Amino acid sequence: MKKWYQDTEIRDGIVLSSRVRLARNLADFPFPARLDLAGREQVCRLVRDSLANVSGLKLKYIEMQELTPKQAVALAERHIISPEFAVNERGKALLLSEDESISIMLCEEDHIRIQVIRGGFDLDGAFESAMRLDDLLDSLLHYAFDERLGYLTQCLTNLGTGMRAGVMMHLPALAKCGRVQKLSNTVSKLGLTVRGTYGEGTGAKGDVYQLSNQVSLGISERTALDNLKAIAMQIATQERAVGDELIKDDTVLDHIQRAEGILRAARLLSTEEMLELFSWLRLGVRQGIAEADISGFNELTQTMQAATLSEAGGGGLDRNKRDALRAQQVRERLFDS
Amino acid sequence: MKKWYQDTEIRDGIVLSSRVRLARNLADFPFPARLDLAGREQVCRLVRDSLANVSGLKLKYIEMQELTPKQAVALAERHIISPEFAVNERGKALLLSEDESISIMLCEEDHIRIQVIRGGFDLDGAFESAMRLDDLLDSLLHYAFDERLGYLTQCLTNLGTGMRAGVMMHLPALAKCGRVQKLSNTVSKLGLTVRGTYGEGTGAKGDVYQLSNQVSLGISERTALDNLKAIAMQIATQERAVGDELIKDDTVLDHIQRAEGILRAARLLSTEEMLELFSWLRLGVRQGIAEADISGFNELTQTMQAATLSEAGGGGLDRNKRDALRAQQVRERLFDS
Repeated sequence: MKKWYQDTEIRDGIVLSSRVRLARNLADFPFPARLDLAGREQVCRLVRDSLANVSGLKLKYIEMQELTPKQAVALAERHIISPEFAVNERGKALLLSEDESISIMLCEEDHIRIQVIRGGFDLDGAFESAMRLDDLLDSLLHYAFDERLGYLTQCLTNLGTGMRAGVMMHLPALAKCGRVQKLSNTVSKLGLTVRGTYGEGTGAKGDVYQLSNQVSLGISERTALDNLKAIAMQIATQERAVGDELIKDDTVLDHIQRAEGILRAARLLSTEEMLELFSWLRLGVRQGIAEADISGFNELTQTMQAATLSEAGGGGLDRNKRDALRAQQVRERLFDS
Repeated sequence: MKKWYQDTEIRDGIVLSSRVRLARNLADFPFPARLDLAGREQVCRLVRDSLANVSGLKLKYIEMQELTPKQAVALAERHIISPEFAVNERGKALLLSEDESISIMLCEEDHIRIQVIRGGFDLDGAFESAMRLDDLLDSLLHYAFDERLGYLTQCLTNLGTGMRAGVMMHLPALAKCGRVQKLSNTVSKLGLTVRGTYGEGTGAKGDVYQLSNQVSLGISERTALDNLKAIAMQIATQERAVGDELIKDDTVLDHIQRAEGILRAARLLSTEEMLELFSWLRLGVRQGIAEADISGFNELTQTMQAATLSEAGGGGLDRNKRDALRAQQVRERLFDS
C-alpha cells in the first residue's frame, strides 16, 4: 500500500500537504502529565481495545518504548509524531494506518491526539477523515467535554474545538526576500501562525513553513478551516507573484540551475543540503525554468531524512552511506538517472 | 593568430605550461632602480630600436603608462608581466609577440627580462626560443657580463645565468592531502622552489603551483633545466599515485562530480570558484571519471580572469556581467553546451 506522500498526483508546488489534528481527553482520567505509568498504560490499552473490533479500520498499535531511538526519530521526521513524543518514555503509544496518513498519539500532552495528513491542498479531506475517526472514538469512549468550553485539553490553547489545522507551504520566494517575518506578524492578527517545518521554535528547513490556526475557542471547526484555506490561498498568490519577479534576477537563476546541477551530480548529500537544494529546484520547476519529476518531492522529503533513511536501510547505515544513498535516490527519483 | 594557451594539443593534465625567463642588463646604464625617468625611457627606446629592423621578429612595443590599470592587470593575470610591473609608472615598456608566448619587460627590476611561455611540458622549447632572442639582443646591445660572475643583475639571486625556468603544475591530489608543504621543503634542498601561481607570497589558486629553479650561480643553464625537468617528472609521478588513491574516496568523487555539475549548470561564476572547480574537474578528467574538453583549461584559466575578461568585453563589464559571461564561456568551451 502506498504511503500518503507517494501520491504522484499532487503537483501543487506551494501547498505540499494538509493536516488536521484533534486533541481529545477521557473524562475518567487525569491528564497524562498527572497520570502515573500504570494510569497511562491503562489509557493506551483502553483506546486500543475500543478500536480493536471496528471493521474496516486498520491501525497498527505501537508502544513507544518498544522502538529504538532511531525508529522513534524516524516517525518524528515524517511528522507522524511530535518530536517530544519521540523521547523514549514508557506509557505512550501510537496507532498508525498503513499509509501513514492517520495517526493517533496516546498519552502525548493529551490522552488522544488524532492526526490526519493529506498530500497537497486538501484540508477538507483531512478534516472529514479526522472527524469520522473522532465520531467513532466519541461513540466508544467517554470524552472530557464541557457544553460551554468544548473539548477539555491539558493546554488552554487547545480548549474548545481541540483542533489544529495546518498546511505545509513551500515559500522560497517570500523567504529569500525576507518577507516571512512580516507575513507571520500579519497572519497572527488573523488568529493564525506561521512556523518552521517542525512546529514551534524550529527553523524552516528548505523554506517550508507550517501555516496553522491558533484559535480553538469560540470558533467552529468549519470557520477555522475556511479562514485557514482563504489565507493559505492569499499567501500562495503572493508567493507566486514574488516568484515571478524573483526569477528575473541572475543570481536567482544561478541558484536554481546550480541546485539542479548539484542534485544531478552529487554523490553525497546531507538532509540539510538536500532540503535547501530542493527549495531552489522546486522554485525553478514551478516557474518553468528547471526540469525534475516534482511528484517525487514529498516522498523524498519524507523518506530521505537521516533516521528514516537509516531505518529503511536496516538501521545500520552510517552517515557516509546515508549521504551516498540519499544522493542516489534523489537522482533516480527526480531525474530518472 | 592563436595565443600559446589556445594550443589544443596540450593534454597533459599535470604540467600546464613551461616558462623560461632571462634577466639581462646593459653595461652602460645603472640598474633601473638607480635610473631617473629619462634614463629608463632611454633604455626602453634603445632596446626597442635595436630590434626594430630584425626581420621575422614581430614584437609589439607597449609603454606601460599608456595602459589603463585594468589593461595592465589583465597582462599580469596572463603572466605576461609581473604584478609589480603592472603598477602604473612611467619609464617601463613591454615587447610582446602576437601569440603572447614571448614577452620582454623593459626596466622592470632589470633592464631586460626575456620570457618565453609554452603550453604543456616543453621547457626545452621555451629555453631554445629564449636563447635565440638572448643571442640576438647580445649581438645588438652591450650586456653587463662578468667572466667570473656571469650576467650581472640587480638582485644577487639572479646573478650568474640570470635564468629562472619554471613549470606550472596542477597538483590537486598532493594539495588536498596537505603534502605540498613537505614537497616544498624537499625541493628547496635541491635548489628549486614551489610557489603559488603568481610567484612569491601568493596562494595557489586552483591547486596550481609553480616549480622553478632557485640557483643561477655556479650552474649552467642546461644543468639547471635538466634538474628541473627531472624533479617535475618525479612530482608528476607522485601526484598521479596519490590521485589514484584519492579517487577511491567517496567525498573526492562527490567533489569531482559536483564540480562538473556546477560548471555545467552555473549562470554566474567568479574567478576563484572557477579555478577551484577546474581543479576538481581536471583531477576527474585525468582519472577518467569526469568528462570535459580539457584542451580548453589553459585558455579559460588565462582568459576568464576578471581584468582580462573585462578587457575582452570592451572594458566596461561589471562584476555580474563578467560572472555571467565567464559561466557561459566555460560551459561552451568545456562541455560544448
